Order: sequence, then structure tokens, then C-alpha cells
Amino acid sequence: MAEAEAPRKRARGGGGAARRAARGAVSFETAKYIERNIPNFEVLNEEALQIIETNAETVLEEIGVNFVNNPKALERWRDAGADVTGERVRIPRGLARKLCATAPSQFTQHARNPDRNVEIGGRNLVLAPVYGPPFVHDVNGGRRYATMEDFRKFVKLGYMSKWLHHSGGTVCEPTDVAVNKRHFDMLHAHMTLSDKPFMGSVTDPIRAQHSVEMCEILFGKEFVQDNTVMTSLININSPLTFDDVMMGALEIYAANNQACIISPFIVGGAMAPVSVAGTLTQVLAEVMAGIAYSQLIRPGAPVIFGAFVTSIDMNSGAPTFGTPEAAQITYGAGQLARRLGLPYRSAGSFNGSKLPDAQAAYETANTLNVGLLSGVNFMLHACGWLEGGLVSSFEKFVMDADQLGALHKLAEGVAMDTQAQAMDALREVGPGGHFLGCAHTQAHFKSAFWKTDVLDYKPYETWSEEGARDTVTLAAARVEKLLADYQQPGMDPAVAEALAAYVAEKKASEPDAFS
Amino acid sequence: MAEAEAPRKRARGGGGAARRAARGAVSFETAKYIERNIPNFEVLNEEALQIIETNAETVLEEIGVNFVNNPKALERWRDAGADVTGERVRIPRGLARKLCATAPSQFTQHARNPDRNVEIGGRNLVLAPVYGPPFVHDVNGGRRYATMEDFRKFVKLGYMSKWLHHSGGTVCEPTDVAVNKRHFDMLHAHMTLSDKPFMGSVTDPIRAQHSVEMCEILFGKEFVQDNTVMTSLININSPLTFDDVMMGALEIYAANNQACIISPFIVGGAMAPVSVAGTLTQVLAEVMAGIAYSQLIRPGAPVIFGAFVTSIDMNSGAPTFGTPEAAQITYGAGQLARRLGLPYRSAGSFNGSKLPDAQAAYETANTLNVGLLSGVNFMLHACGWLEGGLVSSFEKFVMDADQLGALHKLAEGVAMDTQAQAMDALREVGPGGHFLGCAHTQAHFKSAFWKTDVLDYKPYETWSEEGARDTVTLAAARVEKLLADYQQPGMDPAVAEALAAYVAEKKASEPDAFS
Repeated sequence: MAEAEAPRKRARGGGGAARRAARGAVSFETAKYIERNIPNFEVLNEEALQIIETNAETVLEEIGVNFVNNPKALERWRDAGADVTGERVRIPRGLARKLCATAPSQFTQHARNPDRNVEIGGRNLVLAPVYGPPFVHDVNGGRRYATMEDFRKFVKLGYMSKWLHHSGGTVCEPTDVAVNKRHFDMLHAHMTLSDKPFMGSVTDPIRAQHSVEMCEILFGKEFVQDNTVMTSLININSPLTFDDVMMGALEIYAANNQACIISPFIVGGAMAPVSVAGTLTQVLAEVMAGIAYSQLIRPGAPVIFGAFVTSIDMNSGAPTFGTPEAAQITYGAGQLARRLGLPYRSAGSFNGSKLPDAQAAYETANTLNVGLLSGVNFMLHACGWLEGGLVSSFEKFVMDADQLGALHKLAEGVAMDTQAQAMDALREVGPGGHFLGCAHTQAHFKSAFWKTDVLDYKPYETWSEEGARDTVTLAAARVEKLLADYQQPGMDPAVAEALAAYVAEKKASEPDAFS
Repeated sequence: MAEAEAPRKRARGGGGAARRAARGAVSFETAKYIERNIPNFEVLNEEALQIIETNAETVLEEIGVNFVNNPKALERWRDAGADVTGERVRIPRGLARKLCATAPSQFTQHARNPDRNVEIGGRNLVLAPVYGPPFVHDVNGGRRYATMEDFRKFVKLGYMSKWLHHSGGTVCEPTDVAVNKRHFDMLHAHMTLSDKPFMGSVTDPIRAQHSVEMCEILFGKEFVQDNTVMTSLININSPLTFDDVMMGALEIYAANNQACIISPFIVGGAMAPVSVAGTLTQVLAEVMAGIAYSQLIRPGAPVIFGAFVTSIDMNSGAPTFGTPEAAQITYGAGQLARRLGLPYRSAGSFNGSKLPDAQAAYETANTLNVGLLSGVNFMLHACGWLEGGLVSSFEKFVMDADQLGALHKLAEGVAMDTQAQAMDALREVGPGGHFLGCAHTQAHFKSAFWKTDVLDYKPYETWSEEGARDTVTLAAARVEKLLADYQQPGMDPAVAEALAAYVAEKKASEPDAFS
């Protein structure tokens, strides 16, 4: 089991390729994952938490969950003491929680560059980009189907983004590559164009297996068995349904000691009750069942308590984002995850806008702030989301990634040492003076304030003379600059060759499939 | 003293004009001020709070504050036991805090429509619009100097905005009216075009006196002496300086039992130390000195602990908004205010953008969320801010006002009654079903989710056919609609006549002054 302590040591033991890769890398600064020094915000009191936990056990015991088209899973559940009828699994009160107890509260996900390893759990927050959209959007080309070329650009932007700790997974869906082969190209891009940690394929169990095999080439076979090198996204088919494709991928990853986010995917009012308390009950029941199942595959397999929850516009049925109900659920689910002792995944750059405009930014900022304060440990979709997740936006990617810097600073908390107390400055300046020139300011101004790389603070006249650019226009310039500045991190040529050969061979071994 | 208990009773006693006004009013829905049912977020621990409180007392005792050009104030301080040398007032440890103790922890501000009275303090949050900008901006006309016509439009928009509880004060600075006369027109607009509570003039003590006199016409003379009908903004000239103009206005208001926000105005690094802890120390010292002074004027005078604090771009010297440092200060100042037992003013729709674009929305959303969670009781600038407070934006006014609805919903907390637990819905739907048609959803969907009046949730194709409108374009349409739907609230004709006569007479009695 990969645990927090001494990951470097094990990396030295087994990660030869990773070490060699790191030596050749051109270095771009990546911030360390966030280690919170501020409290979590807790919206539920003890009584509310106990009601939800009791109700979730009732759901598992009386209603149960379906494991679809998966006889092996039903057998595992029966052996564990569940009541199995058809595909319905009813889990006796307390059993799911007991099984969850073997999952680690924190784990290391290794990157090929060990400086980019992340610790998932505890007080930490790891930020990963947008996942899954079939479309991309940029200010010049508008909205169009995503291609592998777009995918590579997003991986490069992620690599160049200081506040992103993780390269993510399906940063967009490369629709120009066959469905049964695109995972090879996607993983190859993450492995070669970035040296940050990444996610594996979940669209078919065999693709999860391919992901493990590619990691064995990148990290070494033994290293992968002893360490976690992928964190992948397993969605629950809410309400209360676990399909064979996602469970098949989970089974591969858990058996190989690779991490999974086990995550309900809920549009409130459609896939869960319209109430916050009811939705939290369902989320808890679903996640406990899923994580319990992962521990039946391999006790100690690393997992994350996921909650992807939005509200709905009851007139149109459209999902809505950045709403107060989603905030309450995100805060509450964080409390439930911590009481289970599990890392927590939620929030992201969620919004329903078609453009990277004010709507996109309000909804995203609402959600990012909730993510920080709700104790999220792994934030997928932390930048780049547009249009309810249908679109990866180039400009929004860098706009959001810039805001993630503000989360880092906020999470540091308030320094209270003598320098921070600044009594000398107050004495030096006195009533009516100003602080710009005082010794304390001169000593500390460089690090005192978080600074944007995108937004505009110039005087109106200067801004106007420079073309009166809005945020999207400024962001487009930053996208262009980051891609122009991009330099590929170095990699051991033997590893690079082996990866390329594996991908070429696998892609040649079967015909293209487009569904 | 106006206190929370039984405001209606006193209104019945003295507010004849207000009662008559209410009867004639065309009714537009205004939400009740927010009564929080969620915790505050606290970024400082007990040790940090004690350090800041100790340091603030040291600042007051050793450094002191200046009361400029105000011999009467120096005399009051001397009588109260302070050490006065020149204009410098050094306040012995504990004295300021002791004087603050007579200020009420909560008070009622009366509106001429008693249904719109607000309770300032406790767990409440009262929302008021943008204050002070010399410019306005709209999508058609761009940026230009504000006029009285603009001012009236903003008052109408505020009256029509469901989530605004307060009409505010200088919603923009009407630059086409003489400096020494515009306060008459501004107050007259708030009093006649809206029936929500409002703010008085602070730009000269005589204008504060005029504000009181106009309120005496609107509410009745006796009513004003017994009740608070204005909450006005008194800025401290940070660092540690109290000028005679602002103090003169404070003296008028406090003597008349009218409320003042006593508020440092700080661009961090310029008017305060570059550190959060140092800034909080200065804020606390300044507010304690200001509120202590208000209580020397009239013990029990209603006041609000204010903190207007931004960070700075150290390269350009431009103030910056929606930043993590401002968030930390806002959270921390809320804790300090609560420990003093005083209502708290901070946050707002702050941003540094020139346009109501993504930058404006990120920065605003960051700040509005902080405002809610930091326990703010009175949020001035809650909608309409642009360009660091230089500009009141029509579109941003309605965009922000819409987001304020989300704060209301979030503040309600999570319902945990049997209906909210939704176990019947979970049983009815079961694994693989959907909740849209179930009985629980049908019973609750109308009130389950907060709903925007501005933002777009439509499918891409519909949105595209309708002109692919961005948030600003949608907001411009809403501005137009609200102004078209506006109907003036009724007013007793005798009061209306008396107010108009007072304004006409006063304006005719002296020549125009333009500075």
C-alpha cells in the first residue's frame, strides 16, 4: 500500500525511469499541493450528520444497490455478508462502513518527476484540470469537437500552469481518434508532454489494464505494484447503480493498487431527491457501497470519496452550477468523508455558461471557494470547464488556473510571527503617514500579496490605450504565450521508445471502433 | 436608542407618514434581510485574536490617533481620560474598548415602509448597493461621468431588486448637480423613488444636518429622535487619522441617534502594513477609537464596525480586489467585531475590472462569498461596483443583485425535517430510477433550488439561435425590463410636498459650489 510516509525512499527503490526522467527535465515551476492551514467550513451539525449516516445505512440495508451485469461482484458481496437478490445487493447496517475502514486516509500518487508527487488526503488539496468534454472552445475558433491536437495543447497548458499539481485525465475527448484507441494517445500525451501525475482510462476494463501496462513501462513493473501512480475516475450510475464497465475498471485498478475516485454523478432532482439532506444521504450510501466494494477487491486499495453534485433548473431540466444547494452538498459531503476517514473529491471550475464570461466566472468562483473551504483533497475540473462540462475552454483554462493561485494563498492562513504583526511598521509610519516606503514594506512586499498572471489592474487610460481588452482577450494572449514557452520535460530515451512502441503495437492490433 | 425589540410598536407611535406611505405603495417583493442559519468561518485562532487585540491597545496607547482640526473632540478625549498632545490622542489601554461597550450590538433601521425595516447586527446580513463612484458604465454608452438621472435609475433598480434590503446612499456621484446641493437631490430620490431604508450625507456636517431634517419631514420629528432611520458611512483617514469633516458628520448623526458605519479605508501596503496581522491590528485600533468617540458624543448611539480593506499591486500601486489577503482580513475583522459585540460591515461586489466581464465576476464572487461567511451584518457595495469603485455599472448591478439571491439560499442552512430527509423518495425511486416524477419532487421542486433571473441555462442550440448572448447582454435586457416595470411607491401627498418644498428652498438659499 502506498502511504504518506517516505515516498521518496520507495521511489529510489523502484522508480529508476522516473529518476532518469527528472534529470533531463526542463524545469517549470509547479507549486506544491495545498497544505491547508485554515479550518474547514462545516454546514451540518452533529445531529444532522448522525441523521444522514443513519439514513444512509437504512438505504443500503432496506433499498440496497444494484451491481449490474457483474456476477462476480454479486458473489463477492454474498461472501462478505450482504443479502443478494437478483442484481440487488442489500448491505446490513454497519457492514459497508466497516469495509471502508481498510481504505487509507491518505496516499501518495507518484509522478515520474518525484518532485511532483502528490499527497492525497489529510489537510491537502491537489488540483487537476477539466475532465471529459467532447467539445473545445477558444476565442477565435468558437465551439467545435475536440481533437487529439487540442488534447495535447491542454496537457501542455497544464504542465505550464504553476498552480496545477496534476495533469488530469481526459482533458478533452479526442473525437478524431477511434474510441477503442484514444486512451493510448491520451496516456502517452500525459506521460511524455508532462511530468505531473495523471489519471488512467476507465471506459473499459481492458483500457484500464492498458493504462496499468503503460505505467509499468514508465515507472517499472515492480514500482507500480508497490506504489500508486494513477488516480482514476469511477462514476456511480446514480441512483444506487454500479455498472459493469465502471466496476470492471475499478476492479483492475484496485487489484493493481491504483487509486480510484468513487463518485456519484448527480443532477439533484433527477438522479437524487430535490433536497440537500436527501441527496447527501444518497451520496453517502453510494460512496460507502462503492468503496466497500473496492476493499473487497483488495483491502487497503487507495480510494477517494467523490461527490459530483449539481442542482437543476426545474423548468428546463438543465443542470445548474455554482448554486447555493450545490455548495451546501459539497460542504456536507466533506464532513461525511472526514467522518469516514477518507480523502474527498468534489468541486471544480463548474459553470453552465456557453462563454468564458461573467456567468462562467461567478459560478466557477462560487464553486472553487466552496471546494477550498469544504476540505476537498482532490479537485478534478479545477480549471477549464465550460457549458456544464460539455466544453473545455482554452481561455477559461488559464483564467481558472490563475484563480487557483488565490486558493493557495488563502489556504496558508494568517501568519502571526513578530514580522507579520508589523508593530515596527505601525510605529515607524504613525498617524497620517504611508506605508509604501517603510522598512517593513520594503522587506516583505514581494511575497505579501498574491499576484494574478491574467487579470488587469492598470489605470483606465492605459488599459484603454492598450485596446480595452476584456478577460477573455487577456487570457487568449496567455494561452498563446504558455504554448510558445512550452518545453517538453526530458525522458529516458529507452523509456520513450518503449512507450511509443507499446502504443504503436496496440493501436495496430485491432480495427478502429467509433462507438 | 433604537433596539431590536418591538420596532413596529414605536413606528406606530411616531411614524404616521411612514404608515400612510406604505398604504399607497405599489408592492414589489423584497426579501427579508438574511438571518443566517449557518456558522461563520473563522480564520484566526484564540491566540491570534489575543495578540491582535493586545497590539491594537498598544497602538492606541503608545502611538495614538490624530483628531485633526477638531478642538472639541480633543477636549472630549481629555475629559474621558486620554492623553492629548497637540492633535494626537493616546488612549490608555482598555479605555477605548470600555467606551465601545455602550454601543448596541444590534439595532433597527426604520424604512418609511415598515415592512422594509432592517435589523442590523446579530446573525443578520443587510444588503445595500454600490456607494460613491463618480462614473457610470453601461453596455451602450460605455464609461461616462454620472448624472442625477443615472442616480435615479440606480435607486429604481435597487427598489426593484428583490435581494437588496437597502436603498444605499451615493449609488453614484451625480456630477451634474452642485457639490453643495446634490445631497438634497440624492436623499429626495431615495425617499421618494424607493421605500427601502437609506443612508445620509457625510460630505459636510451641515449636509448631515440637512439629512436629519429631511428625515424629520419624512418620518416625523419625534420619531427620528427616538429611532434610527439612517445608516451613514464615516471613513477613517487611515492610518490612524480622524478628519474634522467626517467627525463632524459623525457628531451630528450620533447626537441624533442615527447610525454610522465607522470604517477604515485601507489599501493594504499603502495605508496599512503589508501583512494581514498588521492590517487587522490597525483596523481594530482605528475602529475602536472611532466607535469610542461616537459613544463620547452619545452613549448608546448605534454604530457599525467597518472594514474596507483591499490589497495592492506592488508594481503599479493599483488597489486589487477579490484577493486572498482581503479575504483573510475580512474573515479576521469579523471575529474582532463579534468579540467587541458590534455589528460588522465589510465586503461587497468588489473588483478592479473595467468591464462587467469574467475578472469582475471572479473578484466579486470571491468577495460576496467571504462577506456571507465572515459574518458581515451590513454589506455596502453589495452590487454594481466596477473598476475599483470608480464606476457604477448598470449591468453589473443586476448581475450582482441576482447573485445575492444565492447568498440568501446558502444562509438558510440545511433543512433536516422528515420531508427534507426524503427517505420516501429514495424508497419510491430505488436503484436506476429517476426522481423527476416522484411525489417528493412534485411536492418540493418549486422551492427546492435558487433560480437566477439573469444567467442562461438553455441548451447551446437555443442559446445560439437567440443570439448567443453573453452575461452582459442578458443583464442589459434585465436593466431595461426592471426600469420599464418600475412603479413609484406611494407617499402621503402632504409629506411629498413638504419634502419637495424643503429641497427647493434649501437649494435656492445658496449659490452653487462645484468643489
